[in-house]
Amino acid sequence: MTEKSTDVTRRLLSRRAFTTTAATAAAIAPFAVASQATAEPAGKTAGKTAGEPGDVRRITLYADNLPDGQMGYGLEPGKPTIPGPLIEMIEGETLEIELVNNTDVTASLHAHGVDYETTSDGTRMNNSVVEPGSRYVYTWRTHTPATRPDGTIAPGSAGYWHYHDHVVGTDHGTGGILRGLYGPLVVRRTGDILPDKTFTVVFNDMKTNNLTQAPDFTAELGERVEFIVIAHGNFFHTFHIHGHRWADNRTGMLKDPQDQSRIIDTKTTGPAESFGFQVIAGELVGPGMWMYHCHVQSHSDMGMAGTLMVTDANGNVPGHSMDGS
Amino acid sequence: MTEKSTDVTRRLLSRRAFTTTAATAAAIAPFAVASQATAEPAGKTAGKTAGEPGDVRRITLYADNLPDGQMGYGLEPGKPTIPGPLIEMIEGETLEIELVNNTDVTASLHAHGVDYETTSDGTRMNNSVVEPGSRYVYTWRTHTPATRPDGTIAPGSAGYWHYHDHVVGTDHGTGGILRGLYGPLVVRRTGDILPDKTFTVVFNDMKTNNLTQAPDFTAELGERVEFIVIAHGNFFHTFHIHGHRWADNRTGMLKDPQDQSRIIDTKTTGPAESFGFQVIAGELVGPGMWMYHCHVQSHSDMGMAGTLMVTDANGNVPGHSMDGS
Amino acid sequence: MTEKSTDVTRRLLSRRAFTTTAATAAAIAPFAVASQATAEPAGKTAGKTAGEPGDVRRITLYADNLPDGQMGYGLEPGKPTIPGPLIEMIEGETLEIELVNNTDVTASLHAHGVDYETTSDGTRMNNSVVEPGSRYVYTWRTHTPATRPDGTIAPGSAGYWHYHDHVVGTDHGTGGILRGLYGPLVVRRTGDILPDKTFTVVFNDMKTNNLTQAPDFTAELGERVEFIVIAHGNFFHTFHIHGHRWADNRTGMLKDPQDQSRIIDTKTTGPAESFGFQVIAGELVGPGMWMYHCHVQSHSDMGMAGTLMVTDANGNVPGHSMDGS
Ligand SMILES: [Cu+2]
Ligand SMILES: [Cu+2]
Ligand SMILES: [Cu+2]
Repeated sequence: MTEKSTDVTRRLLSRRAFTTTAATAAAIAPFAVASQATAEPAGKTAGKTAGEPGDVRRITLYADNLPDGQMGYGLEPGKPTIPGPLIEMIEGETLEIELVNNTDVTASLHAHGVDYETTSDGTRMNNSVVEPGSRYVYTWRTHTPATRPDGTIAPGSAGYWHYHDHVVGTDHGTGGILRGLYGPLVVRRTGDILPDKTFTVVFNDMKTNNLTQAPDFTAELGERVEFIVIAHGNFFHTFHIHGHRWADNRTGMLKDPQDQSRIIDTKTTGPAESFGFQVIAGELVGPGMWMYHCHVQSHSDMGMAGTLMVTDANGNVPGHSMDGS
Repeated sequence: MTEKSTDVTRRLLSRRAFTTTAATAAAIAPFAVASQATAEPAGKTAGKTAGEPGDVRRITLYADNLPDGQMGYGLEPGKPTIPGPLIEMIEGETLEIELVNNTDVTASLHAHGVDYETTSDGTRMNNSVVEPGSRYVYTWRTHTPATRPDGTIAPGSAGYWHYHDHVVGTDHGTGGILRGLYGPLVVRRTGDILPDKTFTVVFNDMKTNNLTQAPDFTAELGERVEFIVIAHGNFFHTFHIHGHRWADNRTGMLKDPQDQSRIIDTKTTGPAESFGFQVIAGELVGPGMWMYHCHVQSHSDMGMAGTLMVTDANGNVPGHSMDGS
Repeated sequence: MTEKSTDVTRRLLSRRAFTTTAATAAAIAPFAVASQATAEPAGKTAGKTAGEPGDVRRITLYADNLPDGQMGYGLEPGKPTIPGPLIEMIEGETLEIELVNNTDVTASLHAHGVDYETTSDGTRMNNSVVEPGSRYVYTWRTHTPATRPDGTIAPGSAGYWHYHDHVVGTDHGTGGILRGLYGPLVVRRTGDILPDKTFTVVFNDMKTNNLTQAPDFTAELGERVEFIVIAHGNFFHTFHIHGHRWADNRTGMLKDPQDQSRIIDTKTTGPAESFGFQVIAGELVGPGMWMYHCHVQSHSDMGMAGTLMVTDANGNVPGHSMDGS
């Protein structure tokens, strides 16, 4: 469970410019993708890649084949990752994603949580899929909480969501998801506290981020670490992390000390469910190797277990030889 | 995934009178059953079929065989439906349900969420089952939240519940549930906002409402649509709907804009779990065909997927030929 | 489903003294273990066995073989139980548990919910496992909710947690858990209402508390009964109890009558998840035999069903012959 920094699926993604649709954009906002690589300053930008409410940003997403028969989404052609890039939005933003399908099969982009018309549904039923070699623009809108005329609340878009293919293999994207066409999507609310780093864990059948051995992550003691946990495929899992806990609500954080949200360290997650939370790495427990794993025993035994390495003030992980010996 | 309005299991149920137990009833209240049929004005009455707090209503429920070996509960003899009729109560009401067992096996009625003595438990253990050709009265009480003498809160009965057989096949009703003896039960709190339409989705092993192909539902743009989701049998499912979200709490709605309930569009649901929520059809996403499905990939691929058809101002569903061609 | 009061795994555990670490202990606090036996006054002490905030208590826990190839934790050598003893703490307390490994394999102690350094992780990776015949001290700390310098809330330790082996069989303790090395851990918050009795239900693969037939429990009408529900192994379950409901939050109780927590009587629980709640035995439904069971139909049919026997004023359970005839 040491770091595999050369893993193609975890390579660092550089910041990318974006195009603003002049008609509606209120401001130019940077767009960057947080890497899951652990030693990179870019990790520090997680949570800071969303735009501003009112922005209309445009990005290009590429669906590409990977050499081993897998597929992935990426922000540059020929550089797919599994999971795909972390996409961050802030409530009130609009994101136009041009999907370029560089694979050899019809693919699509379906999002959870955001507002989209049927033309951005990503389903064959709604004619929003992309033929090989073609491109198609999906528009995701988001909104803040609002009170409806009848007094009920229209909830805001904020949440730990995700996106995935909905057409490869079957009309539900079973083949696309199996092969790697999925990624995390976070919609933040103005005022939400931002993490120092974001790590995404996708339990996809018996693999984690499509790896037979779950990846390891590194954070410094005291860093604010965000986890986004997603399940896909056909099985249910229980995400667990040692030494850290979170609140089972929208943000994973309590609103005030009297908040009665359940504090948990294990959570059932079924296909297409997602949740997220932030912890302070090593808070009250110190640096070291903190295992995270699916707690279904046969799943963890088969490799659905990785490590959150929390470094001490000297950059070392107590109990862990950093050279892997 | 077009409408099958002739489906016996989805036939419109007419409003039905009820008998009030004079001793305790405070008022005469209408009792109606909301249909899942989509073009019927009766759908409009969903949420309005409960009585008043203090009422004691009495209805007759019939357990009947269906021609194909299935069974169902119905409000008229020989007219069983799967799921059974939507039963709505308001906190403070009492409902006496006389179950007439027109099947050829011992059957029963067991409810979740409401107050009942062991004589209304619906189990063989508590001698509250009904022989073929016999009838038996089950009494369900409900109550509002109250403060106990020790200062703790006795929670009210409000919730998205359900009822089912507990004796056919095994002492846990495994055969009865498998064959269709189940239905939705909603207990509302005074002041709860009422839906325009209520649709019930029961994932029962690999079928939905005991159909190999999940049913389609129709609503007008802007209608307040209530979903009641129930699971039964042996498997776990993740209910998902495209383009609509809800709050993961009692009502599915936020109490205020600061409410930290998690907003979700996918939820794990295991056998006998149930939840409900209301959405505004097409809110922020427009009319069209919005898929709902179990997100376990093999389940949706096998037919656990239907459509919420949201009509536009002209009564059309964009992208959908209403004549089925 | 009658009581098996002679079951070795349910035998009454006597109160035990503990050792206070002088340096940090603020007060001498009693430590007792609540029994699951139903006729014992000791059951009355459930919820009252934690110490005081600031205490550092020390106990000895023994991992022992059982004659049938199973294993268990116990507070006395040679007297293991499955589940292991209920350990109660109050936020702010520290517990030092010396684990004496009287089994023939390397075993360990891993806790959920509490604060521990990697040296108390209970994993082979962190060198915190115990060889046969050896002993090792695990230190669990707890804390109250606190506001961090950045204004976010560090949640308190209060919760319905559990402990288990993490090394027998595999590096995830799959063999230890399967054989019985697990138990309940409750961390209470100052001011939390205490139960009269606590019952622990562990769904461990297709067994309940490692029994092929789920145990029965007895409570008097009106007693405050606490359930701790834990799952282990490889399967998902839905815990259900007849005639009683709870709030799906930290305590299982509402904070106030307007609290929008979902009231439920059935809850999905996957491996290593745990929750707890308190009910008033027979409240609004009366005395009698109230079934609790996993609602996965094949699971309940195979024996994952027991009874909460609620006695009336005369100590009888209506409908139940107390001599088992
Ligand atoms: Cu798993
Ligand atoms: Cu399913
Ligand atoms: Cu089960």
